[in-house]
Amino acid sequence: MNDSFPKRNILLTIAYDGSGFHGWQRQPNVRTVQSVLEEALESITGGSVQLDGTSRTDAGVHAFGQRATMKGDFGIPAERVPIAANNILQDVSILAAEEKPENFHARFDAKGKTYSYRFAIAPSAAGAVFLRGYACILKDKPNTSMMSEAARRIEGTRDFACFQASGGTPRETTVRTIYKMGISETKKTDIAGNIYGEVEISITGDGFLYNMVRIIAGTLAEAGFGKIRPAEIERIIASKDRALAAATAPPQGLYLMKVHYDEMGLWNLSGGGN
Amino acid sequence: MNDSFPKRNILLTIAYDGSGFHGWQRQPNVRTVQSVLEEALESITGGSVQLDGTSRTDAGVHAFGQRATMKGDFGIPAERVPIAANNILQDVSILAAEEKPENFHARFDAKGKTYSYRFAIAPSAAGAVFLRGYACILKDKPNTSMMSEAARRIEGTRDFACFQASGGTPRETTVRTIYKMGISETKKTDIAGNIYGEVEISITGDGFLYNMVRIIAGTLAEAGFGKIRPAEIERIIASKDRALAAATAPPQGLYLMKVHYDEMGLWNLSGGGN
Repeated sequence: MNDSFPKRNILLTIAYDGSGFHGWQRQPNVRTVQSVLEEALESITGGSVQLDGTSRTDAGVHAFGQRATMKGDFGIPAERVPIAANNILQDVSILAAEEKPENFHARFDAKGKTYSYRFAIAPSAAGAVFLRGYACILKDKPNTSMMSEAARRIEGTRDFACFQASGGTPRETTVRTIYKMGISETKKTDIAGNIYGEVEISITGDGFLYNMVRIIAGTLAEAGFGKIRPAEIERIIASKDRALAAATAPPQGLYLMKVHYDEMGLWNLSGGGN
Repeated sequence: MNDSFPKRNILLTIAYDGSGFHGWQRQPNVRTVQSVLEEALESITGGSVQLDGTSRTDAGVHAFGQRATMKGDFGIPAERVPIAANNILQDVSILAAEEKPENFHARFDAKGKTYSYRFAIAPSAAGAVFLRGYACILKDKPNTSMMSEAARRIEGTRDFACFQASGGTPRETTVRTIYKMGISETKKTDIAGNIYGEVEISITGDGFLYNMVRIIAGTLAEAGFGKIRPAEIERIIASKDRALAAATAPPQGLYLMKVHYDEMGLWNLSGGGN
């Protein structure tokens, strides 16, 4: 690096179909979003690029609004980055790029994230073939009122140790704030032209423990099937015992929707009620 | 094989997401629909199964209605095959199974096939990431009236050598009957929730030359962009010259919709007009 050049720091907004990736994080011998993106960005800038993502999504997990900073000594204007990179990229796309101060950090400066988890309810056999990478397929419809009642009990600032899988990066604390949870139910048309029901969980928090959203999704599905009473959620959280929550829902239903850099926006979201 | 046992012959209806397969046909060292299905069927029957498919779809091509016969000396009732096999299968599904006489052949007894080719028109950047395996993405909308005018000139019994790619199985004749072509235009919602336009070509014929539907799709798109006048289609067909037709459209937009075993149905389809 030439110290006389200012080090550029560009914040990217990224979408990807997680089906073809072994997750975000660079790893030897497998295709990851980070490595595919770094290779494309180094090819368009002609130099070394260091990419720092906000969320280390797992294999199979999708994103409409992942964020990452690209750092390096390159001359390309920020607004040219998406067009140039997307010419090379296939199942990942840079939606936006914005110049940031050198000390801006995609992860440490994030105030919160919104994830969505999708369940496809009893799609047709042909539809299921095409949906299986993009939703968790259920044979029966969970009761969404029960799911909402359970979800409401997850909102707030709590010790969420019960919703943490082993194997993640060790964290100083398992206390997190869930600003807002929502359960919605819609009719969708699959690629084969058949209508099916989708139940979607939306969750916004200041941060998430390892597999936290997928464990919450599994737990809310059990609440929707009457296996966990909504009131039991309080007891599960108080126990801090992972064994009391339900099984982790599969990765292909999970979407990273948005990274929030504006704290006020999060509190307004929370204050919005209903 | 034990000759004293009648050899079973079950006709299967099959759907698959072509994204994860190197096409239908068994080949060494790659994942194909035929090899994945044969493995699943041998596992549920406990014996050797021979699978003959109607259409050797290429890598990336999808199916909602592929057909294949499974032959062998097994005891499983036909109606149990889909349930048992689908427990093992992932991105391929057996939709139906029907006992047939021993001499029934999925390909030779087929009277015709219907394919569909999908163009996604200017989807959002995030939408395109998820659509790219399931449609041919176009930046601009082709003129569908021009496409329909061109398509109408393809119907009938003709020598379609101009729409045959090199490299396929050698055929005795390049004469085929196209019973019916249709162009439709619909609004769809992508997985990111954004609306985009889809232009779909539907084509039913008694048989198709190698890459014929994809070359026709490419040629109709050029007609829709004014690069080929509809009237020129007659001249292209008469020339029998592949070089006069347009480039082959990519495989991921192609869907095998239906195999027809009833000839009368095809003529009625053709006679239906409009």
